[in-house]
Amino acid sequence: MALENPFYTPEVQGAYELHSLGRFELEEGGVIPDLQLAVATYGELNEAKDNAILIPTWFSGTHQTWELVYIGPGRALDPEKYFIVVVNQIGNGLSTSPHNTDGEIAMSKFPDVRIGDDVRAQEQLLREVFGIERLALVVGGSMGAQQTWEWAVRFPDKVLRAAPIAGTAQNTPHDFLFTQTLLDAITSDPGWNGGEYADHADVVAGLARHADIWAVLGLSTEFWKTEFWRGIELPDVTWDTFEEFRDRFIRAVFTAMDPNALLVMGWKWQRGDVARNTGGDLAAALGRVTAKVFVMPHDEDMFFPPRDCAAEQALTPNSELRVLHTVAGHFGLFGFEESYLAEVDSHLTELLATPV
Amino acid sequence: MALENPFYTPEVQGAYELHSLGRFELEEGGVIPDLQLAVATYGELNEAKDNAILIPTWFSGTHQTWELVYIGPGRALDPEKYFIVVVNQIGNGLSTSPHNTDGEIAMSKFPDVRIGDDVRAQEQLLREVFGIERLALVVGGSMGAQQTWEWAVRFPDKVLRAAPIAGTAQNTPHDFLFTQTLLDAITSDPGWNGGEYADHADVVAGLARHADIWAVLGLSTEFWKTEFWRGIELPDVTWDTFEEFRDRFIRAVFTAMDPNALLVMGWKWQRGDVARNTGGDLAAALGRVTAKVFVMPHDEDMFFPPRDCAAEQALTPNSELRVLHTVAGHFGLFGFEESYLAEVDSHLTELLATPV
Repeated sequence: MALENPFYTPEVQGAYELHSLGRFELEEGGVIPDLQLAVATYGELNEAKDNAILIPTWFSGTHQTWELVYIGPGRALDPEKYFIVVVNQIGNGLSTSPHNTDGEIAMSKFPDVRIGDDVRAQEQLLREVFGIERLALVVGGSMGAQQTWEWAVRFPDKVLRAAPIAGTAQNTPHDFLFTQTLLDAITSDPGWNGGEYADHADVVAGLARHADIWAVLGLSTEFWKTEFWRGIELPDVTWDTFEEFRDRFIRAVFTAMDPNALLVMGWKWQRGDVARNTGGDLAAALGRVTAKVFVMPHDEDMFFPPRDCAAEQALTPNSELRVLHTVAGHFGLFGFEESYLAEVDSHLTELLATPV
Repeated sequence: MALENPFYTPEVQGAYELHSLGRFELEEGGVIPDLQLAVATYGELNEAKDNAILIPTWFSGTHQTWELVYIGPGRALDPEKYFIVVVNQIGNGLSTSPHNTDGEIAMSKFPDVRIGDDVRAQEQLLREVFGIERLALVVGGSMGAQQTWEWAVRFPDKVLRAAPIAGTAQNTPHDFLFTQTLLDAITSDPGWNGGEYADHADVVAGLARHADIWAVLGLSTEFWKTEFWRGIELPDVTWDTFEEFRDRFIRAVFTAMDPNALLVMGWKWQRGDVARNTGGDLAAALGRVTAKVFVMPHDEDMFFPPRDCAAEQALTPNSELRVLHTVAGHFGLFGFEESYLAEVDSHLTELLATPV
């Protein structure tokens, strides 16, 4: 029986549809008996079916931030021009996930999922449900960037343009170790109980420690130094100190989530690597990319630093490095700054206007 | 009764002497009935007593790294020229600490200690035990830099030169949050038992998580990316993967330590702030410094970044910014690189040669 968690509902996340892909075999050998992808679309697919944009989601994220922050008339991601498909990644709490599925893969029995599984599932979804064979653009942030890279390497003929934001094609050792501290914060909570908790709130202490590590790595030293948080506003909650901001914003968000969902996504994140398509040869993998690519790291990102992204960009034909500026570090993805959003829109508009 | 821990012995740490300062009242209101400072000295104090160098220790560190890595004939810190006094900070496991003291302040009953307490104790030690009234140089890394700054602000007449390495005069919010994750990794271990464990090994899981967070913030993304650890050698242990290096080096070091000692030092670190001497006015505090100061951040430091140190340097009269280069991030302090040590020696030699 699935666990109830109000965070993973249309009331909180905004509307989405579930599309069944049926039995789905995973790269690691597991099987999802009936894979459901939670999908949100914006705009209309044109007759030529050449105006589709795919957006895969990041760790702990859903389609919601994209809808509220990035998609809109007059924006680069304009639903009046494009058919925009945001696919929630497997295990994110909306698509098939440990807490929302029954039987043989529920909770601790959920199988290991890889970035490549998400990309294959998305390809199947686009083809079978929407009849889309080519994408005008794939764009995603963080784990969404991992999926974007995987798309460009695995299906080069289907991806005309790609914009990996604040993420890498091949995960780094530092990033692996960082993610492990996030996961261990959860699994070290006795309330986690090997993944068989009765309610996500049983793991609140572990989820809070998980959030606290995000507070350190997810933002930037300068975000905290400049007290940027004073300008961030949410309904019905305020903060006067940096500890209050951590507690009322960062902890509040992560303690609402499902622990096993975070663990599934984290395991996947740690192992993102397009070189799995080419026997471990990263240059060969990136050399397969035919899309026009804008590689867009965040200048203050503490775990996907620009130099790591620049090294991958240098291996990618027909690519450019477009560093984004945000004092919020990796979490700049949330779009706290109009200047950041203007940069993203400018680059994506230029990319979408580039003939390919 | 004190807990046995072989890590905190001369056999492991190298020789030191204990000096009693008697009853010591702390800024937070607590009292150490008989404060013992563990002190190691190198060289001879001259008749004029003007060749003394003080080195306070960093978080989790002792005098040992300074002895093995920084002090030696022909080096900047030359015991043939200078009388070098390394004082282990209060609570570090060698000086009076929760696990090595009895009675009213043992273990969980250990009082809160501040950077200012260490500096006052060191001043008393130097004056009463060695008759030293002025220091040719105070130099320290990380929490040692915090103490170095505190010396220069609190006792400007006694400090001729100062070299805070990889540390700040006023701790930042980011640094506070980072340190908190380190401490919470320990206190969330049920084996910690409110500070009343029977053996530090009861807290091994928490100490390991503490170490794992250090692995992420203490080094640098580039340290891991370049596999710098392949060139690090220790007796009787090897590693072939980055996970093995984390386990056999970083975890091995931190799981040998006393949990309460780390908590005492961490609490102190979080609250380092020279502006306590001037009613919260950092510029006024740093404006009091009369020493010639070389501010020496590490270029890749993830929690004492150069810009934070540069901002303090800009407020300090008669100071210069000397950025040190090390791929090992904050842990560059361990002196893995000859090039780093050459930079440190060059700057300290120049500083010591500067007339004041």
